[in-house]
Amino acid sequence: MSNEKATTTRTYGLCTLKFKGAENEKAKEQERAVASEAYDQELASLIDHTLLKPEASKEELQQVCAEARQYRFATVCVNSSNIPLVATLLLGSSVKPIAVVGFPLGAATAKAKAYESREAIAAGAREIDMVINIGAMKSKEYRTVYEDICAVVLASAPYPVKVILETSGLTHDEKVAACVLSKTAGAAFVKTSTGFAKGGATVEDIALMRSLVGPEMGVKASGGVRTREDADAMIKAGASRIGASSSVAIVTGKKGSSSY
Amino acid sequence: MSNEKATTTRTYGLCTLKFKGAENEKAKEQERAVASEAYDQELASLIDHTLLKPEASKEELQQVCAEARQYRFATVCVNSSNIPLVATLLLGSSVKPIAVVGFPLGAATAKAKAYESREAIAAGAREIDMVINIGAMKSKEYRTVYEDICAVVLASAPYPVKVILETSGLTHDEKVAACVLSKTAGAAFVKTSTGFAKGGATVEDIALMRSLVGPEMGVKASGGVRTREDADAMIKAGASRIGASSSVAIVTGKKGSSSY
Repeated sequence: MSNEKATTTRTYGLCTLKFKGAENEKAKEQERAVASEAYDQELASLIDHTLLKPEASKEELQQVCAEARQYRFATVCVNSSNIPLVATLLLGSSVKPIAVVGFPLGAATAKAKAYESREAIAAGAREIDMVINIGAMKSKEYRTVYEDICAVVLASAPYPVKVILETSGLTHDEKVAACVLSKTAGAAFVKTSTGFAKGGATVEDIALMRSLVGPEMGVKASGGVRTREDADAMIKAGASRIGASSSVAIVTGKKGSSSY
Repeated sequence: MSNEKATTTRTYGLCTLKFKGAENEKAKEQERAVASEAYDQELASLIDHTLLKPEASKEELQQVCAEARQYRFATVCVNSSNIPLVATLLLGSSVKPIAVVGFPLGAATAKAKAYESREAIAAGAREIDMVINIGAMKSKEYRTVYEDICAVVLASAPYPVKVILETSGLTHDEKVAACVLSKTAGAAFVKTSTGFAKGGATVEDIALMRSLVGPEMGVKASGGVRTREDADAMIKAGASRIGASSSVAIVTGKKGSSSY
């Protein structure tokens, strides 16, 4: 059949695929699956599709953005120097670019974090994920921690700021303090982890954070969330957003292998 | 001996005593005792001598102020309407007047608490002990709690503000939140209790509060501190100030009976 040799082009966001002949039917089937049952759109809408490794290439960033458009993830989360590219790649979609700021140590000055936030927003970032000043928290310099968050919230307004606590290195009381100060400073979310420290999100930390910030504020589970089961457990514990790099595996139920 | 019938007048602050004959020697002895060994001056210097019952009479206030001058307590702590009298009674001594503000429920508005603080300071108060907005804390409205403290700190500057947490009604995490917000807002002390709620200071709460605010900030144990042993336990746990009405009993080692 001549149909066997026909070529069809299908575009998913910026991702364009060409299919030939019998593959065409398979492609249609895949497309229908993607468009309806094959992945969990409700879950995808809670995912920040994340690529934060410093060696991320342009090709990898393009792939992440194409996946985000295809699966309609909430956002794409990248280092701030990648925002100009990512914002362009996501233009016209519902997917928002996130810049991480003061990442991953949180040890830059408040003014530097604010500057990085303003630059990222000018380049198209629509959410900011900042890391708290961990040293100040350890020194009980709560006002320094608070003013650091305030500086980024102010610099990023009206766009929402997530405050990364790096929970794995904090005591219970420090987690409480960080949540309280984040909410007081007007942040939109508290977030567990950078993915660059010794530990990531835990169900216990998510439950604690939710109990502290109440129902209105966001709680983001990030670091080590690799499977559908991981994501479900975090959401059940109170997470309203998931940060992951295995996002496609999570929403299709397949096994993810990539690190955060 | 004519000396037996001589009359001597001795003044301890505003408290003037007259002695005759042999009593004179006894009085001198008492005076020396008070001035040296008979009470613990170091401990006395940490005590806020307190009279907060609403029915406190002018005579009771006079007595409290005389005791404070005699034993050189740190302060006299009273309701704000009593500050004009107490400030006059303490004039010329090292004892400072404290006004409690928003007392004892903490449920007045931030502006009302700030106004009450300004009035008290204008009348001679030199420290302000305010009660947090407990309802806002219970509702996780940390910004309301914070701004309430900030308003009083600002209204009271440069005089120190103590923040009464009313610990007996708070969860562990709420105690952490209250300490963190008090320190962030620039308060000088965190303080356990009003003495009007179901519980007072505990060694565990003092230790927690000290662990949270670090070594520089003040921690005041108040509510149910009635004996030397109570006071010693609080100081050992980290208290740098004691609020009590049994202050004389505490510094002389006698049994106190009065309520806070």
